[in-house]
Amino acid sequence: MCQLLGMNCNVPTDICFSFEGFQARGGKTDIHADGWGIGFYEGDGSRLFIDTKPSCESAVAELVRNYPIHSLNTIAHIRKATHGEISLKNTHPFQRELWGNYWVFAHNGELKDFNPVLSGQFQPVGDTDSELAFCYLMDRLSQRFPSARPTLRQIYAVLAETSKKIARHGMFNFLLSDGTIFFAHCSTNLHYTIRKAPFKKAHLVDEDVSVDFAEVTTPNDIVTVIASVPLTDNEEWTKFTEGELILFKGGLPMFD
Amino acid sequence: MCQLLGMNCNVPTDICFSFEGFQARGGKTDIHADGWGIGFYEGDGSRLFIDTKPSCESAVAELVRNYPIHSLNTIAHIRKATHGEISLKNTHPFQRELWGNYWVFAHNGELKDFNPVLSGQFQPVGDTDSELAFCYLMDRLSQRFPSARPTLRQIYAVLAETSKKIARHGMFNFLLSDGTIFFAHCSTNLHYTIRKAPFKKAHLVDEDVSVDFAEVTTPNDIVTVIASVPLTDNEEWTKFTEGELILFKGGLPMFD
Repeated sequence: MCQLLGMNCNVPTDICFSFEGFQARGGKTDIHADGWGIGFYEGDGSRLFIDTKPSCESAVAELVRNYPIHSLNTIAHIRKATHGEISLKNTHPFQRELWGNYWVFAHNGELKDFNPVLSGQFQPVGDTDSELAFCYLMDRLSQRFPSARPTLRQIYAVLAETSKKIARHGMFNFLLSDGTIFFAHCSTNLHYTIRKAPFKKAHLVDEDVSVDFAEVTTPNDIVTVIASVPLTDNEEWTKFTEGELILFKGGLPMFD
Repeated sequence: MCQLLGMNCNVPTDICFSFEGFQARGGKTDIHADGWGIGFYEGDGSRLFIDTKPSCESAVAELVRNYPIHSLNTIAHIRKATHGEISLKNTHPFQRELWGNYWVFAHNGELKDFNPVLSGQFQPVGDTDSELAFCYLMDRLSQRFPSARPTLRQIYAVLAETSKKIARHGMFNFLLSDGTIFFAHCSTNLHYTIRKAPFKKAHLVDEDVSVDFAEVTTPNDIVTVIASVPLTDNEEWTKFTEGELILFKGGLPMFD
């Protein structure tokens, strides 16, 4: 099993505070020590930092923690291997290009007897059920809308239908973004909290670290943080319902 | 304009020594200060580190220089922007997946009046002629061999034919790898050196740094380093001929 962390904002925001608590779960406060990864967007560009070392020991994770990258959409993942060996090709998040945008995906869960038919446009490089599910989602979108990007409602409909199908094979909690919009799907366990004015102090569950968001934000900032398990112990976290797919944009849920 | 650095080996090798000299050209000993990037393979997995800061000042470049990643194939690029603004989406190397492998590409040069017809399977995210040329190469390969990976000769033939077409539009020096094989194409300026037993000392052009490869290798190691401009002043570098496409594998040229 694995854990997910995502952030969707209306202004580019760094994830340093949330990542600090999350990183600790990669081998220090929790068992997810089989690699980790994080994907950021800067405009339409994206960067993925992935590593097969536990996040609590990784030099790359140290860089990410100390080097604030401001992003509208961020997806992070710490891995406890179930399917597939511990190797770079099996490390989330995964990335593909569709309709001229980079799509980044991370999954928490495990799928059984999952052998979808793929057109060939998106093929897994590694051995995980997760990357296979991602390729299937991308394939469904591109087969349905081959020439150009459809509306958000149309993208949502294909993802909702396909996620439902995939979730029949097991636990399928995932985060997916193209840099402008952010999808989060829950089959068992996923939570989110919305930070907006009036901002207050937040305290991590995993480390004795607090931040007063009133000091580091402007009154117009809106940030949604999504995590498998709540990261702070003094904020209100909403649990997704089973089977729920939420589209976030500008830091707020658009529809589900 | 930009500069390229590539490495193809028969055993996973770190690029720290060559990268040290190359990195200095990104704003210190040369003018290529509009971002940089490097792509490594570990097995079939790949990681890209890209940054819009000059490589001589970048915290990410510092990490790469000090954190030896051992790879059979490595592609690096420092950028002096000609087409497209300085932003992450325009920073080389670029990556796409084809036939279940990640392909990584970097380009030195400039293309004029280059408007190829694309099927839509590979679309540029940024504004560079370079990424457009990469998408065109990938598109030609996938359109010609849609279902599965063909032979090396067949891949070579499509790339040679397409590169020739693209090079009619301007300077088209590029490096391309899928993690197992390495293509280098020269339209104006590209050099390579082969390091194998008996190994000797090499000294950088850009920094007063030497390494004695006899101390850090085994007699069976073979490493080809490819660069726009030779990186060392006491090794033999072979200049590519104009229009030459060489396929390297296991540290040696296979055919051109």
